[in-house]
Amino acid sequence: MEKLEHIGIAVKNLEEANALFARLLGRKHYKIEEVESEGVRTSFFEVGGVKIELLEATRPDSPIAKFIEKKGEGIHHLAFEVLEIDKTLNQYRDNGFELINLQPKAGADNKRIAFLHPKSTQGVLVELCQEKSKE
Amino acid sequence: MEKLEHIGIAVKNLEEANALFARLLGRKHYKIEEVESEGVRTSFFEVGGVKIELLEATRPDSPIAKFIEKKGEGIHHLAFEVLEIDKTLNQYRDNGFELINLQPKAGADNKRIAFLHPKSTQGVLVELCQEKSKE
Repeated sequence: MEKLEHIGIAVKNLEEANALFARLLGRKHYKIEEVESEGVRTSFFEVGGVKIELLEATRPDSPIAKFIEKKGEGIHHLAFEVLEIDKTLNQYRDNGFELINLQPKAGADNKRIAFLHPKSTQGVLVELCQEKSKE
Repeated sequence: MEKLEHIGIAVKNLEEANALFARLLGRKHYKIEEVESEGVRTSFFEVGGVKIELLEATRPDSPIAKFIEKKGEGIHHLAFEVLEIDKTLNQYRDNGFELINLQPKAGADNKRIAFLHPKSTQGVLVELCQEKSKE
């Protein structure tokens, strides 16, 4: 893993959360992006090289809707940048980690992404991500 | 806020978690430190300039023990570095954020720390921290 790319935070209402995080972080979000396949609308903040990604569900069966129903709003996942996501994902599988996604899929922010199951990562939902243009 | 200083992760067993995160992050923890006043034993990893702090409770009334009892193991807090923690804490209070600590207290890693209540930060437990030597 190269670096922490972003922290995903599940919120009920993206507009309200954008206003609150602007007050908290002392800066505004710099973009909003919807990922239809995932059922989420996201906004991005940047703090000292790390992104904060707020995630709002766009439909009831969205993973974010289910997370909030179960655990409430809060930190949802940590995303780490990797250079070769297909290879890295296989290495994690071979190393005993349980994969949620056997193959990378399209995520927000021009990324290919895949999640490791929190069962095998001490309760932490870990995303691996790679910029599409860097492949 | 200057930057994301670390991410705190609540774990049941620090030795097991250290071994797992070494496999996950591809590097070992670089120190272990107990904060007796907080009832925690911590270990630190570093990934691209951000620290991952694993937190194990050392007694049943530790905030980490209570967190795990309620929510299970997982991401516990986000810590942001600030330059003047006393002044910043007052600014957050004046700006409508609920403080858990009205005054900064001693934390791990040579820091003065204070927490904002997750009620006022969209479910995210936020720590403000400042290096003692930088005051």
